[in-house]
Amino acid sequence: MTTIGFIGLGAMGMGMARVLLKEGFCVRGYDVMPAAVDRLTEAGGVGVSSAAEAAEGADLLILMVLNAEQVESVLFGEEGAAAKLSAGSVVMVCSTVPPAFARQTADRLYAQGLEMIDAPVSGGTGRAADGTLSMMTSGHPAAFERAEPVLSALAANVYRLGDECGQGSTMKMINQLLAGVHIVSAAEAMAFAAKSGMDLRTVYDIICTSAGGSWMFQNRVPHILEDDYTPHSAVDIWIKDLGIVLETGKAERFPLPLTAAAYQIYVAASALGWGRLDDAGIVKVYEMMGNVKIHGE
Amino acid sequence: MTTIGFIGLGAMGMGMARVLLKEGFCVRGYDVMPAAVDRLTEAGGVGVSSAAEAAEGADLLILMVLNAEQVESVLFGEEGAAAKLSAGSVVMVCSTVPPAFARQTADRLYAQGLEMIDAPVSGGTGRAADGTLSMMTSGHPAAFERAEPVLSALAANVYRLGDECGQGSTMKMINQLLAGVHIVSAAEAMAFAAKSGMDLRTVYDIICTSAGGSWMFQNRVPHILEDDYTPHSAVDIWIKDLGIVLETGKAERFPLPLTAAAYQIYVAASALGWGRLDDAGIVKVYEMMGNVKIHGE
Repeated sequence: MTTIGFIGLGAMGMGMARVLLKEGFCVRGYDVMPAAVDRLTEAGGVGVSSAAEAAEGADLLILMVLNAEQVESVLFGEEGAAAKLSAGSVVMVCSTVPPAFARQTADRLYAQGLEMIDAPVSGGTGRAADGTLSMMTSGHPAAFERAEPVLSALAANVYRLGDECGQGSTMKMINQLLAGVHIVSAAEAMAFAAKSGMDLRTVYDIICTSAGGSWMFQNRVPHILEDDYTPHSAVDIWIKDLGIVLETGKAERFPLPLTAAAYQIYVAASALGWGRLDDAGIVKVYEMMGNVKIHGE
Repeated sequence: MTTIGFIGLGAMGMGMARVLLKEGFCVRGYDVMPAAVDRLTEAGGVGVSSAAEAAEGADLLILMVLNAEQVESVLFGEEGAAAKLSAGSVVMVCSTVPPAFARQTADRLYAQGLEMIDAPVSGGTGRAADGTLSMMTSGHPAAFERAEPVLSALAANVYRLGDECGQGSTMKMINQLLAGVHIVSAAEAMAFAAKSGMDLRTVYDIICTSAGGSWMFQNRVPHILEDDYTPHSAVDIWIKDLGIVLETGKAERFPLPLTAAAYQIYVAASALGWGRLDDAGIVKVYEMMGNVKIHGE
């Protein structure tokens, strides 16, 4: 039985950690929220009280924290986890981070005799809890050999993008560029359809089988139709993820005019206090800008 | 046997006219290009030399011309077709036109005792030739009663949006907004992936099964991968169709920032002389702006 350290027990991380427990792994879990650590203990895991403790005796350390800053702090900060790992252990970074950060982090870990898998995920909390995520991965073959049973437990699809950390994160970034733009196009189109007096359910049904369709349109527009913005994925996630896309574009000197336009809609939604709503809630920006109400008073 | 007048025998119209001939309709066809009229005659139709002649004795008149200006001219211009139709005949406008234009055209036809079906199509030349188009339609029930056998011959899906002309065109406009934006997001994402050194076929395969996927991404990116911009649907079509979206947004006072950003990429492609290339050719704008080559010299 492999011992896994798991840091970041939020909606995604807790689902993944539970899958690993069910598959018979020993999971040492840490989160800044003590209640999350308690829930892991209740589920049969070993709840610990620091990142360093989670890493103790772990063959593999999974990070499912919010962003690059937290990855940095958890690995290399005070009471950091990296120093506690034994040589050859694998750090699997599942957070969405800039590709350049993934590369730099890998280099720092290699210098300490550790391995890394750059492994951002896609699929949301439901698929995290089912062990059917998609993972966009890269790293040394030796790291994959050790991590294989864990990847199989967590994901239905493990895409191998190459031997260099950063390639997995680049793939995720390209996916987020498209997904983030398509949520905005869905909102722009549906609010415009409402302004034009169309029946929105009919529009939805037709678009789902037409050339205008997208995965995001199909998945998110029902939230608009039901006026339900319970956050499955929040507006502010896109401030972060499209922020990574635009920052990387700036660093690589690659212009991204459509992504930049989409980003502004998320910024507006967040400015208006809707950052923690479901991302389909950006349609409220269009309702406001376009002076149209999709649902009655 | 119903007699059908058919005006506009381009790539779409010729396919549709041939389907109608195969189904046993008498088709009186006209196009400004005499060669197209000759091809219709060869296929068993009755080639004529003006719009007015096409309308003579027709129970139903189909317009598959380029734009609203041509619809206007063909129906109401010198030697216009509307004056030749007998009371109760149906004009089926299949061109993509502004919803407001469709409404106004219907009102003019109603005033002459004629009926109209607002019936823009989706599906491209392949499905036009197979009689498996999607048609987004609206108009009076009486018009649909007369047109039913013709709609069944031409389309696999006939969406009825309501009794008012303009509703079909609004539905098409919403579809074009999404489709037009998604071609640009596909180009932006693939060119950025190329700049980031990714293998583009792998990116394509992963996105097609991920949250970033769209109908347009799946359909158009292979043109980019194969470096083949034979025009199935040209860049300049989007100058027109997104132009309709933006003009309608202006008229209705509804802001469309994402569509506006996408539109500029088509304008750039057209400015650079690529207006008649396949619409996936807008990726060349990104290659140029981002200083990246997707294919070798």
